[in-house]
Amino acid sequence: MNDLKYYPTQELPYCRIHGRTDRSMQPLPLFWTGSGLEVLVNGTELWIDLEVDFDFHEPWAAYRVDGALMGRQMLLPGRQSLCLFRNMSPEAVKDVFFFRELQAMSEDPACRLLVHGFKTDGTFFPVPDRPYKLEFIGDSITSGEGTYGAVGDQPWIPMFMSASRHYAAMTAQALNADFRLISQGGWGVVCGWDNNPHHALPLCYRQICGLACGPANEALGAQKPNPFEEWRPDAVIVNLGTNDNGAFDQPAWQDESTGETFQNKRNPDGSLEAASVERFEQGVIDFLKQLRSCNPDAHIVWAYGMLGYELTLPIAHALDTFRKETGDTRISFLQLPNTTEETIGSRFHPGVRSHERAAGVLSEYLKSIL
Amino acid sequence: MNDLKYYPTQELPYCRIHGRTDRSMQPLPLFWTGSGLEVLVNGTELWIDLEVDFDFHEPWAAYRVDGALMGRQMLLPGRQSLCLFRNMSPEAVKDVFFFRELQAMSEDPACRLLVHGFKTDGTFFPVPDRPYKLEFIGDSITSGEGTYGAVGDQPWIPMFMSASRHYAAMTAQALNADFRLISQGGWGVVCGWDNNPHHALPLCYRQICGLACGPANEALGAQKPNPFEEWRPDAVIVNLGTNDNGAFDQPAWQDESTGETFQNKRNPDGSLEAASVERFEQGVIDFLKQLRSCNPDAHIVWAYGMLGYELTLPIAHALDTFRKETGDTRISFLQLPNTTEETIGSRFHPGVRSHERAAGVLSEYLKSIL
Amino acid sequence: MNDLKYYPTQELPYCRIHGRTDRSMQPLPLFWTGSGLEVLVNGTELWIDLEVDFDFHEPWAAYRVDGALMGRQMLLPGRQSLCLFRNMSPEAVKDVFFFRELQAMSEDPACRLLVHGFKTDGTFFPVPDRPYKLEFIGDSITSGEGTYGAVGDQPWIPMFMSASRHYAAMTAQALNADFRLISQGGWGVVCGWDNNPHHALPLCYRQICGLACGPANEALGAQKPNPFEEWRPDAVIVNLGTNDNGAFDQPAWQDESTGETFQNKRNPDGSLEAASVERFEQGVIDFLKQLRSCNPDAHIVWAYGMLGYELTLPIAHALDTFRKETGDTRISFLQLPNTTEETIGSRFHPGVRSHERAAGVLSEYLKSIL
Amino acid sequence: MNDLKYYPTQELPYCRIHGRTDRSMQPLPLFWTGSGLEVLVNGTELWIDLEVDFDFHEPWAAYRVDGALMGRQMLLPGRQSLCLFRNMSPEAVKDVFFFRELQAMSEDPACRLLVHGFKTDGTFFPVPDRPYKLEFIGDSITSGEGTYGAVGDQPWIPMFMSASRHYAAMTAQALNADFRLISQGGWGVVCGWDNNPHHALPLCYRQICGLACGPANEALGAQKPNPFEEWRPDAVIVNLGTNDNGAFDQPAWQDESTGETFQNKRNPDGSLEAASVERFEQGVIDFLKQLRSCNPDAHIVWAYGMLGYELTLPIAHALDTFRKETGDTRISFLQLPNTTEETIGSRFHPGVRSHERAAGVLSEYLKSIL
Repeated sequence: MNDLKYYPTQELPYCRIHGRTDRSMQPLPLFWTGSGLEVLVNGTELWIDLEVDFDFHEPWAAYRVDGALMGRQMLLPGRQSLCLFRNMSPEAVKDVFFFRELQAMSEDPACRLLVHGFKTDGTFFPVPDRPYKLEFIGDSITSGEGTYGAVGDQPWIPMFMSASRHYAAMTAQALNADFRLISQGGWGVVCGWDNNPHHALPLCYRQICGLACGPANEALGAQKPNPFEEWRPDAVIVNLGTNDNGAFDQPAWQDESTGETFQNKRNPDGSLEAASVERFEQGVIDFLKQLRSCNPDAHIVWAYGMLGYELTLPIAHALDTFRKETGDTRISFLQLPNTTEETIGSRFHPGVRSHERAAGVLSEYLKSIL
Repeated sequence: MNDLKYYPTQELPYCRIHGRTDRSMQPLPLFWTGSGLEVLVNGTELWIDLEVDFDFHEPWAAYRVDGALMGRQMLLPGRQSLCLFRNMSPEAVKDVFFFRELQAMSEDPACRLLVHGFKTDGTFFPVPDRPYKLEFIGDSITSGEGTYGAVGDQPWIPMFMSASRHYAAMTAQALNADFRLISQGGWGVVCGWDNNPHHALPLCYRQICGLACGPANEALGAQKPNPFEEWRPDAVIVNLGTNDNGAFDQPAWQDESTGETFQNKRNPDGSLEAASVERFEQGVIDFLKQLRSCNPDAHIVWAYGMLGYELTLPIAHALDTFRKETGDTRISFLQLPNTTEETIGSRFHPGVRSHERAAGVLSEYLKSIL
Repeated sequence: MNDLKYYPTQELPYCRIHGRTDRSMQPLPLFWTGSGLEVLVNGTELWIDLEVDFDFHEPWAAYRVDGALMGRQMLLPGRQSLCLFRNMSPEAVKDVFFFRELQAMSEDPACRLLVHGFKTDGTFFPVPDRPYKLEFIGDSITSGEGTYGAVGDQPWIPMFMSASRHYAAMTAQALNADFRLISQGGWGVVCGWDNNPHHALPLCYRQICGLACGPANEALGAQKPNPFEEWRPDAVIVNLGTNDNGAFDQPAWQDESTGETFQNKRNPDGSLEAASVERFEQGVIDFLKQLRSCNPDAHIVWAYGMLGYELTLPIAHALDTFRKETGDTRISFLQLPNTTEETIGSRFHPGVRSHERAAGVLSEYLKSIL
Repeated sequence: MNDLKYYPTQELPYCRIHGRTDRSMQPLPLFWTGSGLEVLVNGTELWIDLEVDFDFHEPWAAYRVDGALMGRQMLLPGRQSLCLFRNMSPEAVKDVFFFRELQAMSEDPACRLLVHGFKTDGTFFPVPDRPYKLEFIGDSITSGEGTYGAVGDQPWIPMFMSASRHYAAMTAQALNADFRLISQGGWGVVCGWDNNPHHALPLCYRQICGLACGPANEALGAQKPNPFEEWRPDAVIVNLGTNDNGAFDQPAWQDESTGETFQNKRNPDGSLEAASVERFEQGVIDFLKQLRSCNPDAHIVWAYGMLGYELTLPIAHALDTFRKETGDTRISFLQLPNTTEETIGSRFHPGVRSHERAAGVLSEYLKSIL
C-alpha cells in the first residue's frame, strides 16, 4: 500500500458536492438520496471516511467510477472507511462519485450519513461543469422504491430504494447533467397517501432538508434555508400527485391533539369529489408559485403517471390556471408511462425497466426544451 | 383454376364491414382509411371486385390474411379484380381483410373506391365478434402520413399514407379490437394548419363521411347521418390539436367571398394568445359534447403529442372543464410520445417506430380502463 | 398526366440490374427472388412494363422508393403496366428498385416475370456503385419462406415467400451493398429434404439460373453459363445444409427410371450415420471448390443455423478440411441464431424477427471482415 | 435488534453450497467466482460471518435476495460480519445467495474468502432443488472481466470482474439452474495468451481448485480431487480458445529454468501455422476426453466467439474428430455473438450487453437440448 494522505472534506482542493446540504459543515452531511461527493483524482488508491448512525433505517450507499456503477452496500453505525479503488494506474484520472442510496428519513431522526474526508495517494483535479443542472422533486417513485428487489418483495426497508437505478440518474446521464433529488415516500403536494396534510413536500421545500427533524439534523443544518442562488437548475421536474391520489381511497387523517381532520374524498359513484380536487389544484398552483420564486429561471416540468394517471386533468388544469394567472409559460406537463406488469419492481413500485422508460420520455423532452 | 362463384357485396352470407359507410349500398363505398371488408372463407381462391376512380389522388389498398399484412398496392381507375389468394388449402378457413390505405380525400371529390363483390370457390363463415370496438379521430397522424417512404421524402401523395403501419391498427391488434378511423390531414378541432376554420373535424363528425364532397360522394351516401346506434365504440380516441397548434405560426386565413378572416395568434413573446387559446379550448369542449351525444357509453380518450406537446395544457384544461361542467368522468387525457429523430418517417411525420411507441402507450392504457 | 416517354429496358440510359440474368435480353427476365431493376429518375411519374406467366405458382413483386418498401403484390398473367409513382416533385431524383418476391420455380417451368421497359416524364441518372457486393446461396430460408403470413399458416405458396423482409436485404442495407440471391426451397448441398440428389444447388450454380427448366426458360438464357467476371461479390454467403439435415428423417428417394436410390441415414441410436455424413462433407468441400473457382476473390461465409444446428460440426469439419487441403483461408463458418417461438413466421419457417436477428449477426460479421 | 443466533457453516440445518469447494471445511472456502452460499430463511435479520485475506488482489462479493442483486462490495482483510438484511417481515421466507465476485487468483496465493457462518433470528429451510445444473469453464470472459467499469477503463483489477452481470448467471436464471464457474483470465486450452503452456485450464480441472496454489490454499483443500460424483451437471459449457488464439500474436514463452519454449505461430501470410493448429486441436480433443471421463452424462457444449471467431474451425474440427473417434454425440459447438462497439465493456472485454446477448443464444440452445 502506498503512502496515503488524508483530506478532510472541507480541505479537498477540488470536489463536486451533489445534493442539497450545508456545504460549510465538516463532516459534510448527505441528507437526500442521490446526494454525494464527486472527485476527479489520479493515484492508485482512494478511500472515503464516513460516519453513520440511525435508529431503525440504515442508510445504503453506492458509488460510480467513471460514470459506471461499481458498488452498493448497506452502511452500519460508526465511523468507517470504505475503499473506493485500489491498484489503479497511478497516472490515470478517475471520476469517482460516492452517493447516498436512501431517501432522507423523516421517520428516523437519528439516521445520518456524514462524509469526513478522503484518503489517497493521488492528486485531485477540478470536476468540469456539466452543461445542465436538474432538480427532481418527488415521492417514493423518486426515492427509487422498487428499483431493487424481486417482484413480490414487500417490506418498506432501505435496501429496496435507490438513487442508482433511477429515472433521474438515467435522465441526467442522457443529458450530461448534474442532478438533485428532493423526495419522500408517501408524501404528496397537499397530503400524504394517508391524508396527513403535514406530509406535503411544499412544506419543506425552502429548507435544506426540512423533513429531517430533530436536534441532530438541525445541528447539521437541515433546517437552514436552502441557498437557491448557489445552484440554479435548468429544469425542475416535479413528480408528485401519486400520494394525493392514493389518499382518495384512505380513511380521514386526524390530528390527535387538535382533532382536526383531513381527507380527499370520492363521490358515491367513485369519481373524485370536487372540493377535494379543488384543494389539490390549489396546492399545485401554490407549489408552482413557490417553485418559481425559488427558481426564477428554471423550466418547471410536472412529470406524472408512473403509478397511474388519475390526477392528470387536475394537475394539468392547475398548471394551466397558474400559467393563465401569472403569464408564466416556462412550465409544462409531461405524462410518464404508467408501470405495467412487465416493468414493475419490488413493493408494487416501478422497477428498473419502468425507470428506463420514464427516463427515455423525460430526456427526449428535456433535450427538446433545454 | 376452380369453379368460382361471384357474390355481390350485398349478397355475401357473412361479412364484417369495417369503417363508416352506407351499408345498404351496392357496390359498397370505402370512404375512410382503414375501411374495408373482412371475410372468413375457406376454398382455394378469393378475388375482390373493385371500382376505382379519382381526379388526382389515387387510392391505395392493402390486405391482411389471418391478421398478417400480405399486399399493398396503388389502385388505378376502372373496374378490376384483385386476387387475394390462390392455391390455398381448400378446407382451411382464412380470415381476409381488404382495406383502403388512403384517407378520405376532401380535396378530390372524384376519388373513390367501391367494392362490388367477391369471387371464390369457398364458403363464407361468420366473422366472430371481437371483444372491443375503437374509434380514432385525427389528422395526418391518424391518416398514417409518413408511415411509408424514406426519411426525407416530402411530397404529399397517397403512397406515403397508410392504415397498415398505423398506431390504431397496432392498438387494435393488441386489444383484439375492431377499429374505425375518421381522419383528415391538415385538419384540426377548430381550424386547419392554415387557419381555415372549415377544416375542422367536428363539422363533419355526424355524417358518414361529411368531408367527402360533391354529388358523386353524396350519391354514395357520404353526407347521410352516421347511424351511431349501429356501432358503439368502447373507446373514442381523439388525436387532434396538432394542426390547431401549427396554425399559430401561419398567416390568417381569409374567406374570399365574405372577407372574413381567422387566425390563431401568438403574443409578441412567442407565447399563445389567450383569446386564441380560449377559442380552441371551447372548440375542444364543444367537440366533447358532440362526441358524448353521439357515443353515450364510450370512454373518450384525448391522445395527443406525437408531433409536439405545445397544446397539452389547453387540451387538458378543456377536458377538465368539460368534466366539471358535465360531471362526465369517462374522459381522459393521454400523452403520446413525441416523434424523435430515431422514430421519424417520411414527410417529417411519425414513422412506423413512432406509431409503435404510441400504440404501446395507448394499448397499455386502454387495457387498464376497458 | 404528363407526356410520358417509353424506354425499352435495353435502351434505358442508366439502370442497375440486380440478380443473375442474361443482360442482353429484351425483355429482361427476372429469374431469382430479389432480382430486379433499380433506376434513378426524376419526373412526376414512373411506370414499369411487365410480362407475366405461370402454370401454377404466380410471381409476386415488390418495390422500394429511396430504399423504403412501398408496394407488394401478386402478379397475374399477361402484359401489364404497374405505376411505381405518380405526382412526385418533378425535380427530385427518386431511387426506385422493382424486384421479384418469388424464388425461381424449378417446379413451374412456365413461371416467368419479364421487364419490357419503363415509362416516365423524367430523366434517368446513373445509379452510384455501392461499396460492396454480396451473393447469398440458400434454400427456403433464403427464399424468404415464412417472412409473410401468420404463424400457423402452412400452404407452400408464393405469397408467404419474399425478398423484401429478408435477412439478405437487411444485411445489404446495413452494409450499403448490392446483393443477389440464389435459392431454392427444399434443396440442399447434396440432396433435397426428400433425399432427391438432383435437388442440390451446386448442380446449377454455374448457369445463370440452372434450375429454371424447359424450353421457355432456356430461350430466356437461364441455362447459359453465368458470366462470373461481370459481377464479383466481396462475399459469398452460403446458407445451406438445412435440407440435407432434414433428409436424415425421410425415406429414401428412388429414381423411377433407373431404380437408383439415395438416403441420408441415422444410426439406430438416432445419431447420423458416418457414411452419410462423409458424403455430405465431401459435397460441402466440392461446392467450396466450385465456389472458389467461380469467385476467386470472395470471402466465402457458410452461415448456418436458422432452422437448427445439427449439421454444425460436419459443415465446420468440411470447411476446415477444405482449408487445410487448399491453404485457402478466405472461408469461414458463422452460426446464425436458431428460430424460436418468438421469432417464427408462417410455414414453421423463420419469421421477420428471425431474419432480423440473423441479419444482425451476419452484418456485424461482414463489417468485421470486409 | 432481535436475539440473533449464530450458525457455523457446518451446522447450518439447510444450505446450498454453490461452486466447487471442500464441503467439509469450517470455515468454508469460496475459491471460484460465483461460488457462494444460498440459504432460505425467515426472520427479520441475517448476517454472514467472513474471513478475508490477500496480498494484492482483494476479493469482491455480491448477494442476491429472492434472485435480485442487492449489494456488491470490495472486501478488506480480516474477520468481519456483513448484514445481508434487516427489518424484513419475520414470517416471510427469503432466499439469500451470497457469492464471490472475483475469480480464483492463481497469481495471489494469499487471496482467500472464507465463510464462517450466519447469524439470524430466523429459521432455515431447505433450498429446493433446481431442475438443472450447469458448469461453465472459461477464461477472462467467464471471469466476467469487463462486466463492471466504463468503456475505456483498463486496469486488470478485481473491481472490473464479476459473477453478477454474467452470461452464466443470466443463462442459469433463464433455465432455473444452479451453476458453477471454473475460470481464469488469460488462460486457454493448451496455453495462455502469452504462450505459457502451464496456463491451461485442463491441467487443473480435476482438482477442486487446482490453480489456487500455495500451502494456504492447499490447507483449504484446493488441491484435493474434485468429487465429480457429488454434483453432476446436465451441461458443461466450455468457453475457451480466446487466449490460445491471442497467443498466435505473442512472442514465444520460455521456461526460465529449462529453456524450453512454446509458441503458437502464424505463417508469413498471417494465417495460422498448421502445426500450431494441430496441437491446439489435439488439446481440445484431450480436454473433451477428460471432461467426458469426469462428467459421463453431461451435454458438453463448446461455446465460443464473444471475443472473435478465428478459432471456430479448429475447435469445430476437434469436436468433430472427437465425435467420430469416440462415437460420443453428446457434444456440440455453439457460436456466441462477437462483442461489438455497442456491447463492449471495460478492459476491451464483453460488457453487460454482450453477456446478455450470449446468454440469450446460450439459454435458447440449452432449452432445446435439455
